[in-house]
Amino acid sequence: MDTDDLIQCTTFGFEETASDGAARTGVVETTHGTIETPVFMPVGTRGTVKAMRPDELKEQVGAQIILGNTYHLYIRPGLDVIELHGGLHEMMNWDRPILTDSGGYQVFSLEELRTIEEDGVDFQDHLSGDRHFFSPEKVIEIQETLGSDIMMAFDECPPADASEEYMRDSMARTTRWEKRCLQARTRDDCALFGILQGGTDEALRREHADALCHLPFDGFAIGGLSVGESSDAMYDTVEFTTPMMPRDKPRYLMGVGTPQDLVECIARGIDMFDCVMPTRNARNGHCFTSDGTIKIRNAPYTEDMAPLDAECDCYTCSNFTRSYLRHLYKSREILASQLCTLHNLVYYDRLVERARRAIADGAFAEFRRRFYENRGQTPPESPA
Amino acid sequence: MDTDDLIQCTTFGFEETASDGAARTGVVETTHGTIETPVFMPVGTRGTVKAMRPDELKEQVGAQIILGNTYHLYIRPGLDVIELHGGLHEMMNWDRPILTDSGGYQVFSLEELRTIEEDGVDFQDHLSGDRHFFSPEKVIEIQETLGSDIMMAFDECPPADASEEYMRDSMARTTRWEKRCLQARTRDDCALFGILQGGTDEALRREHADALCHLPFDGFAIGGLSVGESSDAMYDTVEFTTPMMPRDKPRYLMGVGTPQDLVECIARGIDMFDCVMPTRNARNGHCFTSDGTIKIRNAPYTEDMAPLDAECDCYTCSNFTRSYLRHLYKSREILASQLCTLHNLVYYDRLVERARRAIADGAFAEFRRRFYENRGQTPPESPA
Repeated sequence: MDTDDLIQCTTFGFEETASDGAARTGVVETTHGTIETPVFMPVGTRGTVKAMRPDELKEQVGAQIILGNTYHLYIRPGLDVIELHGGLHEMMNWDRPILTDSGGYQVFSLEELRTIEEDGVDFQDHLSGDRHFFSPEKVIEIQETLGSDIMMAFDECPPADASEEYMRDSMARTTRWEKRCLQARTRDDCALFGILQGGTDEALRREHADALCHLPFDGFAIGGLSVGESSDAMYDTVEFTTPMMPRDKPRYLMGVGTPQDLVECIARGIDMFDCVMPTRNARNGHCFTSDGTIKIRNAPYTEDMAPLDAECDCYTCSNFTRSYLRHLYKSREILASQLCTLHNLVYYDRLVERARRAIADGAFAEFRRRFYENRGQTPPESPA
Repeated sequence: MDTDDLIQCTTFGFEETASDGAARTGVVETTHGTIETPVFMPVGTRGTVKAMRPDELKEQVGAQIILGNTYHLYIRPGLDVIELHGGLHEMMNWDRPILTDSGGYQVFSLEELRTIEEDGVDFQDHLSGDRHFFSPEKVIEIQETLGSDIMMAFDECPPADASEEYMRDSMARTTRWEKRCLQARTRDDCALFGILQGGTDEALRREHADALCHLPFDGFAIGGLSVGESSDAMYDTVEFTTPMMPRDKPRYLMGVGTPQDLVECIARGIDMFDCVMPTRNARNGHCFTSDGTIKIRNAPYTEDMAPLDAECDCYTCSNFTRSYLRHLYKSREILASQLCTLHNLVYYDRLVERARRAIADGAFAEFRRRFYENRGQTPPESPA
């Protein structure tokens, strides 16, 4: 495609600042400020990171960037309302960067309610049943209206068990869609990332990377993982895919993952992550700690006077016992969700912060060893 | 009764600091600090004021004292757990005063599950169905274990439609129970308030006040209101009851009420209030404002870019629109409960704060006039 006339983002930049094996640190520049990578992005599906005030997220979690979901925001409150506010940042009172997905993932998951055409996807929304049409042009228009710092291209994320024929057709269509996204941009202050598909097959990944990585996207994401494949398959795929991606642009692994997934995929060259796990699990009383996961509802915590995580200095761990948190959870008190969400997000943020420091110090292997040691686990095989 | 051998609270005190008509300001001294009255006490039923972090409650609401519910805490997490923490303050990380009810109100409301005897009340709890027995001695023991700054005596709160015969029997038993509460105390750092019953009947109120007000309680509450009677009947009852209560002790109106109820009952000499209304209503999207109540779910707020209350400087009103709050509420986001609860509690706190200032300035009538003017309402008849 002719890329000369394409609108480019003038506010976006990326610089790798250190590396240790395949792991690396970097700085991403966006319209709403800089981000140090590797970074974990809390998910704010409907214009709120569930159970968190934005000032908590900023001052206590230290979140550098959050993710918003195009599909959910388009359906409710709708673009008119968000536009009236002047964009998503202003509506939700978040002045740091926001990355938005394209809505493709949610639309494709509405299996019975959607039909795929070359032009885009026709679907009925899950709330009103109204019909909508998402095309590459439409999702760029929506994300520009949201005022996203980093927009994602419109892609199809095929299921893990898709046939190779389906995968190839889907990838080819996704390539055409992503090119249309590049052409659809009208704002020069919203970056746009391409998404690489290809499942867990190295040849398919190579093919899709070759088709897209020379195009003027501001960064690239690995899509199509965390969709049911094994951890090993995911780690292997990340390991052979990151070298196919441009070194001078951020690498984002979509929808991942557990703390271990973060450590292993940072080790394999990933810069950016997002996942609902720390927030969703918190609301179910699953808390991440240095020693592993705690299910706070369990009886052994009834009289446990320890904090959730003795190594954590968050508000929750500084002020409350496991016993009290269990009481709140069993009593279905909102404060349980607030306190566990805060802790889990702090846990994720500190994990990537320690990873950044370790990479800068050339001590990532030691960081990784300790991560498993604290949990009493044997590390999986190191990346080659 | 012989009061010479009774344990008295050595840390409690009350001083009236100003008056304007029947309205007055005062200072209450407790083990966990001083309280300026009139005061509104947010309700923290199960060891949490729902949807509020204790630091928000302290620093942003400015709550001087909160209320805990003996029945609920006794059932879950239970006294063993609270005792392990060193008391309710420590468990919930609240270092300001706590007032606890006696549990009587909840136990009596378990109509089918309880039987009243002279010694106390036998009941099955609503969670496990286990049998328990609350007596005056037991509820003092529980409240001392909680470490309450202000304990409430064990009383029966008869329904608004109780016969005069039932009322007289109940009042006489309540008098005997309250005396036993005085005798049951073992701690000299937990104050104890008596509760005056008598429904809306002036003669009965007089009778019960005469029976109890000479006893060495640290303060007195008006119980048996806000149980279904009209606002006028409540205001009249408060008006003729407060003069029966000692001027040198705090006067607490239990379970009241709306912003108007607070204004009218402060005008009639009440010092302390508690009610679930600001917190419960917030979770249902009912928000209190200078102009009256807003039901945030309603369609007119869909594109309303104003804050909840233009005269409020709380975090919610400083940072978010009604439109966004409506979106959060419609999306059942926890943040809706957090932001609306914060605002409603700030509204209540600022209302009593302004009342205190008006009383100190001898301008309570003007404060009251403006309260109704802002809402476009005609004030009810002034207290005599």
